[in-house]
Amino acid sequence: MAKETQFVEQIADIEKDFPQWYTDVVMKTKLVDYGPVKGTMVIRPYGYAIWENIQKEMNARFKARGVENAYFPLLIPMSYFTKEAEHVEGFAPELAVVTVGGGEELSEPLAIRPTSETIIGTMMAKWVQSYRDLPLKINQWCNVMRWEKTTRPFLRTSEFLWQEGHTAHATAEEAEEETFAMLGVYKEFAENCLAIPVLTGKKTEKERFAGAVATYTMEAMMHDGKSLQAGTSHYLGQNFAKAFDIQYQSVNGVLETAYTSSWGVSTRLIGAIVMTHGDERGLKLPPVVAPIQVVIVPIASKKPGVIEACEKLKAEIEGAGIRVTLDTSDNSPGWKFNEWEMKGVPLRIELGPRDIEAGKMLCARRDTFEKQEQPLENAGETVKELLATIQKDMLETARKRRDERIVYAEDMKGILDAVDNGKFVKAGWCGCRACEDKVKEETGATARVRAEGEVAEKCAVCGEKAESVIIFARAY
Amino acid sequence: MAKETQFVEQIADIEKDFPQWYTDVVMKTKLVDYGPVKGTMVIRPYGYAIWENIQKEMNARFKARGVENAYFPLLIPMSYFTKEAEHVEGFAPELAVVTVGGGEELSEPLAIRPTSETIIGTMMAKWVQSYRDLPLKINQWCNVMRWEKTTRPFLRTSEFLWQEGHTAHATAEEAEEETFAMLGVYKEFAENCLAIPVLTGKKTEKERFAGAVATYTMEAMMHDGKSLQAGTSHYLGQNFAKAFDIQYQSVNGVLETAYTSSWGVSTRLIGAIVMTHGDERGLKLPPVVAPIQVVIVPIASKKPGVIEACEKLKAEIEGAGIRVTLDTSDNSPGWKFNEWEMKGVPLRIELGPRDIEAGKMLCARRDTFEKQEQPLENAGETVKELLATIQKDMLETARKRRDERIVYAEDMKGILDAVDNGKFVKAGWCGCRACEDKVKEETGATARVRAEGEVAEKCAVCGEKAESVIIFARAY
Repeated sequence: MAKETQFVEQIADIEKDFPQWYTDVVMKTKLVDYGPVKGTMVIRPYGYAIWENIQKEMNARFKARGVENAYFPLLIPMSYFTKEAEHVEGFAPELAVVTVGGGEELSEPLAIRPTSETIIGTMMAKWVQSYRDLPLKINQWCNVMRWEKTTRPFLRTSEFLWQEGHTAHATAEEAEEETFAMLGVYKEFAENCLAIPVLTGKKTEKERFAGAVATYTMEAMMHDGKSLQAGTSHYLGQNFAKAFDIQYQSVNGVLETAYTSSWGVSTRLIGAIVMTHGDERGLKLPPVVAPIQVVIVPIASKKPGVIEACEKLKAEIEGAGIRVTLDTSDNSPGWKFNEWEMKGVPLRIELGPRDIEAGKMLCARRDTFEKQEQPLENAGETVKELLATIQKDMLETARKRRDERIVYAEDMKGILDAVDNGKFVKAGWCGCRACEDKVKEETGATARVRAEGEVAEKCAVCGEKAESVIIFARAY
Repeated sequence: MAKETQFVEQIADIEKDFPQWYTDVVMKTKLVDYGPVKGTMVIRPYGYAIWENIQKEMNARFKARGVENAYFPLLIPMSYFTKEAEHVEGFAPELAVVTVGGGEELSEPLAIRPTSETIIGTMMAKWVQSYRDLPLKINQWCNVMRWEKTTRPFLRTSEFLWQEGHTAHATAEEAEEETFAMLGVYKEFAENCLAIPVLTGKKTEKERFAGAVATYTMEAMMHDGKSLQAGTSHYLGQNFAKAFDIQYQSVNGVLETAYTSSWGVSTRLIGAIVMTHGDERGLKLPPVVAPIQVVIVPIASKKPGVIEACEKLKAEIEGAGIRVTLDTSDNSPGWKFNEWEMKGVPLRIELGPRDIEAGKMLCARRDTFEKQEQPLENAGETVKELLATIQKDMLETARKRRDERIVYAEDMKGILDAVDNGKFVKAGWCGCRACEDKVKEETGATARVRAEGEVAEKCAVCGEKAESVIIFARAY
């Protein structure tokens, strides 16, 4: 028992010191480690397996929408950034720059991509000739680099992994439609695969992607009430198409300029999973992306037949397409319970001599700690259903917790009180930058997303007529 | 017909100008495009889909051997390279170096990884404490950068994609065993998935990976008789473990130094596929990795019922887990035949009113041009078997072609004659660097791989006693 307690105590108290809890959890469960260069991370196998599951789910959705994967060069000539005025202003301060190659000074410095609109725009201009070449929908999974001062594993690192989708269309309507559709894909994915409820809508001009006409976001509430931007979809209008000459011959033989969109999610999502679902015992992983969905812990494993029964059970569960592990290590069952709980495995099955004799197994849910006896017969199907229930319940629990923490505010004091108490605040906004800046200054909260379809009388900052309702929150 | 001819003529003659044929094929089939920075490539969807299939097949093999995927940082402090003397000598001239980050000069320049032994060694030293932590087997799929003067898409580019596996072991024997086992995995993969026969064995000291104790390679013969190094596996001994302090407490409580291995294959493999199987009509893709395995071309597609029957057939083939496309474009059947042949789709099915009436389909193999009628009933299984046959036959054809072009030589003239005629040459070698250099100088051929288990009387260069038999060839 002493060993178990010691094990659990390795994680900081989630309510008292959430930042330390986060660091403890991501490090001790071996999701990630610090890289040797400041601000970099090593994604360890347990974390990378989550990313691979995310990729698999995303790829299926992209494919269904006719998006094809490709790969574009890492290094972009510095001059490309200057072709779109807002874009260079936004990204220039964050660039990592290669000045030497093969022992020689380069004639033009090359930037490591912070995002690839410029280089993909260049290639699209080459590939798109006629309306028949449109729409063109391309995605790439890759590493990107944004030089950051303060970093945290998964949430903000100088290098991270992501996918960036880029599409070109004949009309503005089509490109906008694609922008919204991808935001919809992201929302569905976040909710059904990660069990993370998200608020989606438009960003303010201030928070917009550098070079976009409009940026749409999905925002998720973390355990501490702060918001995490979990994915964005940008309508780029003709900004990049004009800068990079993406032109096509229309049906009528007229040369037209295309309209583009881009959209991305990153390894940040792993941080979002940790901070949405985690609790005092550690990680709590949604089954769809959990590297290990089920762990079998043998009880009185030295008794004859126990390991054999566990192996048989494992094979059966595996046969149902489930990722399952059998823990045959020398540790005590109690120690194992703690370890696999910390690692967030959605379902634990305990199997001992008495269970085997009774033809039963004990299933312990990580999300609710509920334990239930289930027949060994047809275990694969039973476990599959249980995992589906856990997945669904995790989303509903997170949604309930979030919804209880969204409040309205009429004035600046209301906003401050709310964010001080770890809440999202809906407030009327006149639409001016000054009021947005003032909220940031006085409360530390930023405009996360427009509450689509909602209306307010007056701006919570200046009292003038409200143009829209904004969800304000402190953010990662 | 004029159109068809024109289409085929777009590719240079494979026998008269193989380099131009290669460029034509990889560009016109949209496998790849040139990136804007010299020496870079854009891997287009048709090429990237091959890479994804390679990844899928490889990942299954890695997993079966207990190798886990992870991700390590792109940027490596320059000082890391100098920790292993041979390593820095080998890679320093090829590095791309970041000197500016976030608008500021960096205190230590950072290299874009040309390979990751140094950074992974650093992390392994942190992760490995006890013999219980060994063996540690990690792989990463990533981009790497080696500044090259002369480049060709897939074969040699400044940036390319690869996987690099890195393992640490308690003993030299275990690490060597892993090195050989992975070479075996590569060989099995190359032959069964890519239908590329390979010669495997040890590299000479001159051709060894910078920092390795021994490098093992698989070499494949391209259409023009040149060799392509298609994958390597390195036994690193304690060279990197000592340089990066990968130490562990043994069972007896003694601090020991680990032994490591590393191994990799890259997007070069796509070039190898093109140059092994391609013919005068273009690509010829092995079914296992072909993005499209079957194309259905409707004949007299405007006749009632044809498209419906094609769609039904497509659904059936898809149901058998096969990647199939139905070409409903406006082009003529002849034009379609040419296009899909150029794109290397392994099997074409023609379906017209008469076939439908007879309950048959016409199957045309890309590899042999053989056409056969098959019943529509049970089409999924029929096609599956046909694809398996094509896969097997492609390997055997390539093997036969290669084996006919491996000759023995007794002296330098024999070596020169052979390589001038596009052959691989087996020749005795005394083991000294001078003779190896002389072969290179006088014939342009390099020592590709040691012919394991073969013996010769004397060195073909100096006439002294032979230490081993070497396969010499010109190489990519």
